[in-house]
Amino acid sequence: MTRSLRPALCFAAVAVLSIPFGAGAAGPAPSDPEVAAMQRQALAGERTWQLVTSLVTEVGPRFAGTPGDAQSIAWAERALREAGFDRVWTEPVTVPRWIRGTATAEILAPHARRLEVVALGGSGSTPPGGIEAEVVEVFDVEALEALPEGALAGRIAFLSRPMEQRADWTGYGEAVPIRSRGPAVAARKGALATLIRSVAIGPDRFPHTGATRWEEGTSPAPTAALAVPDAELLHRQLAAGAPVRMRLVIENEHAGEAVSANVIGEFRGRERPGEVVLLVAHRDSWDIAPGAQDNGTGVATMIEAARLAATASRQGPRRTLRVLLTANEEFGLSGARAYAAAHAAETGSIVLATESDQGGGRAHGLLVNFAAEDAAASGELAALLAPLGVALRSGEAGGGADLSPLAPLGVPLVDLDLERARYFEVHHTINDTLERVVPADLRQATAAWATVAW
Amino acid sequence: MTRSLRPALCFAAVAVLSIPFGAGAAGPAPSDPEVAAMQRQALAGERTWQLVTSLVTEVGPRFAGTPGDAQSIAWAERALREAGFDRVWTEPVTVPRWIRGTATAEILAPHARRLEVVALGGSGSTPPGGIEAEVVEVFDVEALEALPEGALAGRIAFLSRPMEQRADWTGYGEAVPIRSRGPAVAARKGALATLIRSVAIGPDRFPHTGATRWEEGTSPAPTAALAVPDAELLHRQLAAGAPVRMRLVIENEHAGEAVSANVIGEFRGRERPGEVVLLVAHRDSWDIAPGAQDNGTGVATMIEAARLAATASRQGPRRTLRVLLTANEEFGLSGARAYAAAHAAETGSIVLATESDQGGGRAHGLLVNFAAEDAAASGELAALLAPLGVALRSGEAGGGADLSPLAPLGVPLVDLDLERARYFEVHHTINDTLERVVPADLRQATAAWATVAW
Repeated sequence: MTRSLRPALCFAAVAVLSIPFGAGAAGPAPSDPEVAAMQRQALAGERTWQLVTSLVTEVGPRFAGTPGDAQSIAWAERALREAGFDRVWTEPVTVPRWIRGTATAEILAPHARRLEVVALGGSGSTPPGGIEAEVVEVFDVEALEALPEGALAGRIAFLSRPMEQRADWTGYGEAVPIRSRGPAVAARKGALATLIRSVAIGPDRFPHTGATRWEEGTSPAPTAALAVPDAELLHRQLAAGAPVRMRLVIENEHAGEAVSANVIGEFRGRERPGEVVLLVAHRDSWDIAPGAQDNGTGVATMIEAARLAATASRQGPRRTLRVLLTANEEFGLSGARAYAAAHAAETGSIVLATESDQGGGRAHGLLVNFAAEDAAASGELAALLAPLGVALRSGEAGGGADLSPLAPLGVPLVDLDLERARYFEVHHTINDTLERVVPADLRQATAAWATVAW
Repeated sequence: MTRSLRPALCFAAVAVLSIPFGAGAAGPAPSDPEVAAMQRQALAGERTWQLVTSLVTEVGPRFAGTPGDAQSIAWAERALREAGFDRVWTEPVTVPRWIRGTATAEILAPHARRLEVVALGGSGSTPPGGIEAEVVEVFDVEALEALPEGALAGRIAFLSRPMEQRADWTGYGEAVPIRSRGPAVAARKGALATLIRSVAIGPDRFPHTGATRWEEGTSPAPTAALAVPDAELLHRQLAAGAPVRMRLVIENEHAGEAVSANVIGEFRGRERPGEVVLLVAHRDSWDIAPGAQDNGTGVATMIEAARLAATASRQGPRRTLRVLLTANEEFGLSGARAYAAAHAAETGSIVLATESDQGGGRAHGLLVNFAAEDAAASGELAALLAPLGVALRSGEAGGGADLSPLAPLGVPLVDLDLERARYFEVHHTINDTLERVVPADLRQATAAWATVAW
């Protein structure tokens, strides 16, 4: 029964840089001794990793309105209390309740094959017993729009545009319309159902879910994503020229609304309590995903970064540090919208807002949207981050999805750019597990966010 | 509808070495001009890739006794004929018929979670409705054997030994007893069912199937493999100390026997037709796997290597080249045993036998079991392979699994050692697709086997 021989598990290569002042740092320590000590602590710390491990082990998937969502509210309250936050509270949020059922796709001819498929969030259902129909391949939404009305009547549309791998978000941004808009456009052209190639990089056989939008007043059609290898297989069968027939069964339920919550923790500022640094991460995951990278790492990083910044000095934090762990980012930004609505009057007190929703990769870039008169502040922040290998980039910070309701209100934003190849391999799949997170990268990102919070 | 923008897909990095005489070669061309030309053709050729693509696209999974198995017999006959083999024939083989049904595993307490699980080949079934029981973790078969009789009565055994990643087969060999022997031993100790950690490297959430053995006269118990991250999760929950309860539903059918076939193609030797070079690869895959690496690459490589060797000279091959594509390697070596039994009288005519069943990685090592008086022959072969980066290794060739019935009969064996990290990531999973095969590596392996066949 004993476990005498288990080797230390570390799938992910841990790149150890030459270390002038602490593991994971890339240059000499910052001139401010408090920041240097705080970064050193972050780079040696295990707490972010322990938080992700706990969330993934004890809660797992936590899609809006599910039992896992409720458990993750309790988990987050406990985690914030245990981290020593002065105040911890929840604010109720109404979320849509979409319940995943069956999704199977099977090529019947010319060469029979079962495909790996996952319904997109918000997908409708096929009629009882499913549908059998011919598949028509269309490259992207532009090609779809160019089709005559009714061109897809009685058919299954297959949107096959691949996502390109790039260092920034543009590859995702260019590919994602086949998921977010494609199914509605295909339905308008008469399609019985839509299959998309997963919006993903990587050759692994995991279909990637995600939200799709339906026009007001329309009834959601059945729509699902194929794993990349399955999309390639379908493409090869179609390219051979013979008609490809498929059986598709997709059953989901739109079950009205449910109540979830934003979970909020605050360290009160010692010097300027009225100035709030807002650290945001979404607490929810997709229903199929343990959500280690998306967004357990973000939740854990923000909690630990705030704790480090709050305890860097004996006197406590200079400004108020508020960690906002939102409800339902994935399926409609419910928590972010609720927070922006409830706290509209206080946005003037936010001196800085930042969001973590890119997984647990290393931070390498800094973007801000500060007004010209605050150039000194961004220079100071960049100097403090430089030892971690984070460089100021041109361009303007936009915040992540959960900051999108606040950004238009003129809130000062800081974005940290993370390495995210690993993120897009597992994004919205069952493979988003702890084993895909690199502890050393997580420590470095924690150090970077603690510096931003400080 | 057009496909104007699809980028060339190549997930796998294609390492292009500096090329003295052809793409993929590692040194100067062999002194024999026929071999040099043949290797050059292999290193530039697309046929091996086309064969795997065709098998994976048109047939897919081809487990013993299934419709896919029958389709793959027809596919193999056609492929051998189209490659110009002089004779193509089949020999019937009786195979066991095991039919996979449901397999679900769900932790009920302390933290509910659905796990990714796949029944092992030969697994029995839980009673109708499944079982609910406490899970007991045991490291490996040795620890199992050390338990008192009845120690696992009423429990689910969880065998958690990880597989270590090594350059050779020893990591697999050391871990595989938890799959092949563990379930039977656990049943003997009273376990209701057995779960194992997949015998696999890599952090991805694919459970790996494979065969397990039951002692004569015992009734197969329900047994399944967990994906590596799920085994880690279960381990973490158990390590926390509270009892872990699980619901397990496993339903399979032992359906007697079916008829399959070995498919054989032959190029008749021009100089010494009575001397046979036997090139072996198994045609079957696991039922859940498209079987690109295991063993579509082997099938394709052997067909193309024989074709290249047979056509290297205008006069045809010196010796008879026989490609044997066996039935049911995965679930009992049925084809290999049937071939050895049917051809026992002719084993003396086999001057060389070799097998491909390690995926489509690059060949880097050569092993032989030739008698001392044939040292010159192995030296000659090593010299011809050296330009491809293949080096003679110490140790003795043992042949693959399908050569195990022939090896004891004193057949001269050649093993090519392939790079196989990629192989053990996808081995016996749904992820064993074309996208995990590197075309350049496949070309190099084809060149190496053509040289062996020549």
